Parts: sequence; structure tokens; C-alpha cells
Amino acid sequence: MSEFPNVFDSNVRPLIWVGELDGHLSLLEQKELPQAERWLKLESAAAVADAIREMSVRGAPAIGIAAAYGVALGFREDPTLLNEAAKVEALFELLAKTRPTAVNLFWALDRMRTTLGTVEGQPHQDVVARLLAEAHAINDEDRANNQEMGRQGAALLKDGVRILTHCNTGGLATGGYGTALGIIRAAKAVGKLQHVWVDETRPYLQGARLTAWECIQDEIPATLITDNMAGFYMQQGLVDCVIVGTDRVAANGDVANKIGTYSLAVLCKYHKIPFFVAAPLSTIDLNTQDGAGIPIEERSSKEVTEIQGKTIAPEGMKAAHPAFDVTPAELVTAIITEVGVASAPYSETLPSLFGR
Amino acid sequence: MSEFPNVFDSNVRPLIWVGELDGHLSLLEQKELPQAERWLKLESAAAVADAIREMSVRGAPAIGIAAAYGVALGFREDPTLLNEAAKVEALFELLAKTRPTAVNLFWALDRMRTTLGTVEGQPHQDVVARLLAEAHAINDEDRANNQEMGRQGAALLKDGVRILTHCNTGGLATGGYGTALGIIRAAKAVGKLQHVWVDETRPYLQGARLTAWECIQDEIPATLITDNMAGFYMQQGLVDCVIVGTDRVAANGDVANKIGTYSLAVLCKYHKIPFFVAAPLSTIDLNTQDGAGIPIEERSSKEVTEIQGKTIAPEGMKAAHPAFDVTPAELVTAIITEVGVASAPYSETLPSLFGR
Repeated sequence: MSEFPNVFDSNVRPLIWVGELDGHLSLLEQKELPQAERWLKLESAAAVADAIREMSVRGAPAIGIAAAYGVALGFREDPTLLNEAAKVEALFELLAKTRPTAVNLFWALDRMRTTLGTVEGQPHQDVVARLLAEAHAINDEDRANNQEMGRQGAALLKDGVRILTHCNTGGLATGGYGTALGIIRAAKAVGKLQHVWVDETRPYLQGARLTAWECIQDEIPATLITDNMAGFYMQQGLVDCVIVGTDRVAANGDVANKIGTYSLAVLCKYHKIPFFVAAPLSTIDLNTQDGAGIPIEERSSKEVTEIQGKTIAPEGMKAAHPAFDVTPAELVTAIITEVGVASAPYSETLPSLFGR
Repeated sequence: MSEFPNVFDSNVRPLIWVGELDGHLSLLEQKELPQAERWLKLESAAAVADAIREMSVRGAPAIGIAAAYGVALGFREDPTLLNEAAKVEALFELLAKTRPTAVNLFWALDRMRTTLGTVEGQPHQDVVARLLAEAHAINDEDRANNQEMGRQGAALLKDGVRILTHCNTGGLATGGYGTALGIIRAAKAVGKLQHVWVDETRPYLQGARLTAWECIQDEIPATLITDNMAGFYMQQGLVDCVIVGTDRVAANGDVANKIGTYSLAVLCKYHKIPFFVAAPLSTIDLNTQDGAGIPIEERSSKEVTEIQGKTIAPEGMKAAHPAFDVTPAELVTAIITEVGVASAPYSETLPSLFGR
């Protein structure tokens, strides 16, 4: 990994290990942002699994990092795992079943499993130390990879670019820099950024709560809009490109991401605006042939009928909540990674990113 | 106007005159729906103007009806208007400047002004009685016209139709039946309706609060979705058509309607789904050449950063709030009115609806 000037850095760190081997994972509780900055102290695998499931931590890369720490905590709390394979499976299962769509979760767990294979037969303390070191590495590499992705993405953009983005793909969703928002940070760092349109991203309001918070923290010039305003600003000629993150890219270039992403891609197509996807290699899943193979998480309809605990719809009203959608590869202008930029035909260009 | 079987009726009445000449306008406070059904007692033109501006009453036709009652109340409260033309102008001005986009407001005020011309020189009591009778007529005709529009619209739909709609265009937005939701009511009445997808319609949540409430009242089979899910359900093949209302149709067929409408029209185009606009003749403005001539109301950004008084965005975050957008005629499959259905070329078919 190359060195970066400080200009590409960010102060956001959602996942911090505090202390040594007997320390804990300190997690910024994202459900309470931006009203409060509260840190959760996680000391067990179960606590990490809860935090992922309940969306105290969200964002595909951040979920993967959290799960990696969850594996280390799981081994620390119960030395009998060293001799009982069934317990190890139960630990991985606990963490794997928290969210179905993001592939980084499974990628991170696979990496931890591989690490585990390298320390077979070693004392408990050493195994925990090795697992914890691997979780740290995933966290740190994610941030460094994001910065490189930012540099690659910013190179594609024109001077004075006005970018529209969806959901939160920033430091909070990753090891601290961001995927799509990382590219926006990098565009600002190199002086190309004019403005960012921030989709509020209903139902969970990741844009209004989290991306807006990061924009304020880093003085990124931004305007919050409701999701249904995106087309209006494109029609006005005020959007030069859309950049989003992803929870999983299939081998053919189909992209799963937060609900609403597909509509943005269609709007881009109609307005002839580039639609970019920021995807760390860990989100590219060559084992999934196309979007039809990506499970779409259906979350509680209460997240639609209630906003921060306040009911907005009449009692008895049915609501739906698919949390993600799939954008077909034909609507994706380019997929930006930490090792290069891929464009169609993705079934050829995506494997080549992995040197295949 | 033809007679309707009861099957086309609805129990929703947002604007009810209570009593005789000394009565008042009883207005269902829409800002508190669906949590509470509170009725405002309006006894002055200023109170009506406030109710329109503050969105206690909203929906293009309902705004026009309210303004008509406002004129009657203005004359009742001040007999000196009979002799002071400047005061009459001030009254019309007060009501006209409440909302800029909906043309029915100006249509209703014009109609009241014409009525006024017919009672020149008559005693105060008689003038007020005549104005009040005209306001009643506007209210009742709107409901009857909506039912006829519903019948015309329903005839266009296939059996088992699944309709997506935006904002609230029902009894609450009109004299009691509805424009787009009136067609949905009529489709249910004739047995064609399978399901309705209700866009929540951020930022003001007219769909989640009001359309959902009407669906529950009338047992219309419906599912509430966030605005950014519309494309997803179209992609799944679960939407057969979109029907929306309008605040103003220009002579060329360009349609101003609630923000988010334009994005839906683009999504319809991409998915080859019909995009219908329900437009009472009073919303068709042949004096406005095209959409560029329709003023788009910019409302407070607080309606974006706060939801029902609760702040969702971080302090200091800028937000935008264009309340409407313009859908170009080329994206509109048909415009459904109470006297017939128009399709392109609208510059020819719209005037013919008026017998021109």
C-alpha cells in the first residue's frame, strides 16, 4: 500500500480497540447520531452480533470489521473453543447470520477463519493475540484501501464537480475514511469538489443523520435533500455524477446497495449522468454470478411507519421494507476499487482486478 | 353532471360549512392526521389564508374550495367591501398569495370574482348569501367532477390493476372524493383494483399520513413504501401504472405536482409503465404555455431537517425544499379529466376538453 499525504486523512473512527489483549471494542453508537455521540463497550461476540443486527454499526465494510473483532472476542471469552470445533462453528454462525446482504461480512469471517488455521495447537493467549491482530489489520487496511480508492475515484472527476450520493458510505460505514464518501473526501482534498447533494435515505435516514454529520465534521459543502428530489436536481442540470457504495457486487457487475440506489441509476441513465460505484475488493463477490443470487434483507416495516420512535402512519397501515435493491450492471458506468477502475464488460474486468 | 351510483361515494369531507349565513367553515386539520382528527372553526378570510399557508388544508382542489369560502367570509365580516374596491383587491390578494403553484386557487378566486360581478349594488346580506352559495357549488361540483373523473379513469385500467400513487390526492385534497385517489376509489368500486402502493411522500409525508388514512377508512388494499422503493417494485414487475394528481397542467401538457412526481415519470418511462395524471379542468391552465412558466414553491428547509417537530439532521446542515417539480408532457401517457381523457399532442387535445 502506498503512502498518503495527510490531506487524504479523516478523523472519523467508528471502531476502536481500547487496551491490550484484555481490552474491549469501543463502537460509536450510530443509531443515536447526530443527536448524541455515545460509545458502546463491546466485550463479547454476542454483544458484537447484537450491535450489527440492531444497526448500532452499519455499512458493509464496518460490519466486516466489527465481525472480525467479534471472532477475537469469542475466542477470548471461551478457551474451550480451541478444542471444540462445534463451538467455533457456532461462533462464526452467530456473526454470519446478523445481516444477509453485505458480502464483506463473510469475507472478513473467512479471513479470520484462515488466520485461525495458522495458529492451530498454539496456546489460548497466542491465538487470541493473533486473531486480534488480524482484526486490527482488517480495520487499518480498510482505511488505507479507502484512501487509495478515493485517489483513484477523484482522478475520474472533473473540476468543480457536483456529486449526488446516497446512504452513508463514509468513515462511519468503514474503517474511518469511506467508499463513495471517501471519493468525495478525496475530491475535496484535491480541490475538485464543488458540492455534494446528500440523499436523506429513507427509511433509516443514514444520509440525513450520518453523511450530513460527516459533512459537517469535515466541512464538506453539502445540501441535504429528500430522496425524491434527486431527479429534480438532475433535471435542473445541477448533478454531474452519482457515486454510491455497495454491499455486494456480483461477478457480472450487478450491484446490491441501499434501497433507492436502483432508482438513482435509472435517473442517471435518463439524464446521461455517470453512475459510479465505490467498491472495495472485499465487496466484490465473484462467487455470485449475478444480482439474482444476492439475498435482499427485508427489515421491519416499523422502520417505515415510525421515524425515530414516532409513528407517522395510521394504525393498521401495512408497510414494506426491502433494505436493499440490485442495480443491473448495464446501468453502472464504472466500479471504483482500491486497485483500479473497472468498466463494462464486468465479467472480464472484475476478475482482472484480482489478477485473474 | 350525471348521476352516480352510491358505489362511487366516499365519506371523507375535509371542508364543511356549518350553519346558515352566520355559520362557519369547519376544516379538518390535516397537519394532525392521522394521530388526531381535529376540526378548525374558521370565521374570517385571514383564518382561511393562514390555514392554506400553514397547510392545515392542502391539495390543489381543496385549496381552491377553501379560498372560495374565504372570499365569502371576507365579505361577511366587513360590509364596507361593498363600496371600497381597494379592500376587495386586498381580500383577493390575501388569499391568492398563500400558495403559488396550484392554479385551482386562482381559478376559484376568478370564479368568485365573476360571481361578485353578478350581485353589484345588492344588499350586503344578499351578496354574502350569493358568495357562500358559490363556494358551496365549487365544493359540491368538485366532488361530483371527481366521481366522473374516477369513472373515466377506471375505464382505462385493466382487471387486477396494481397502482402506485404519490402524495395525497384523495377526499382530503378535494371536495371529498379525490383525483388520482378518486380513480383508485372508482377502480375498487368497479372491482378492478388489486393493490395500491402508497409513496410516503417526503418531506411532508402526505402519503404516509393522509393517503394511508384514507385507505384505512375505505378499506383500500394498500402498502406504504418510502419514495425510493418505487423503482424497486417496478423492477419486480409489481406496478402496472402510476397515477398522480397535479397542481397545474400547462397548455403543452407539462405537469406540476408534488416533488418526486418527475422521478416517478422517468422510472415509468424506463419500465414502460403508463404514467397517468388526474386533472380536474380547474387545474388545466391554458394561459401557461409550458412548465417553465409554473412557479415552483420553495418551502422551509425545516420540513426536511425535522419530521413532526423532531430534528433528524445535525445542527448546521443545509437542506433544500422545492415543494413541486414539473414533469414534461413527453413523459405523460394520458391526462384524465371529468370531461374526457387527453393524450399527446396535448397542445391540441387539452383545448378541445374546453370545447375550443
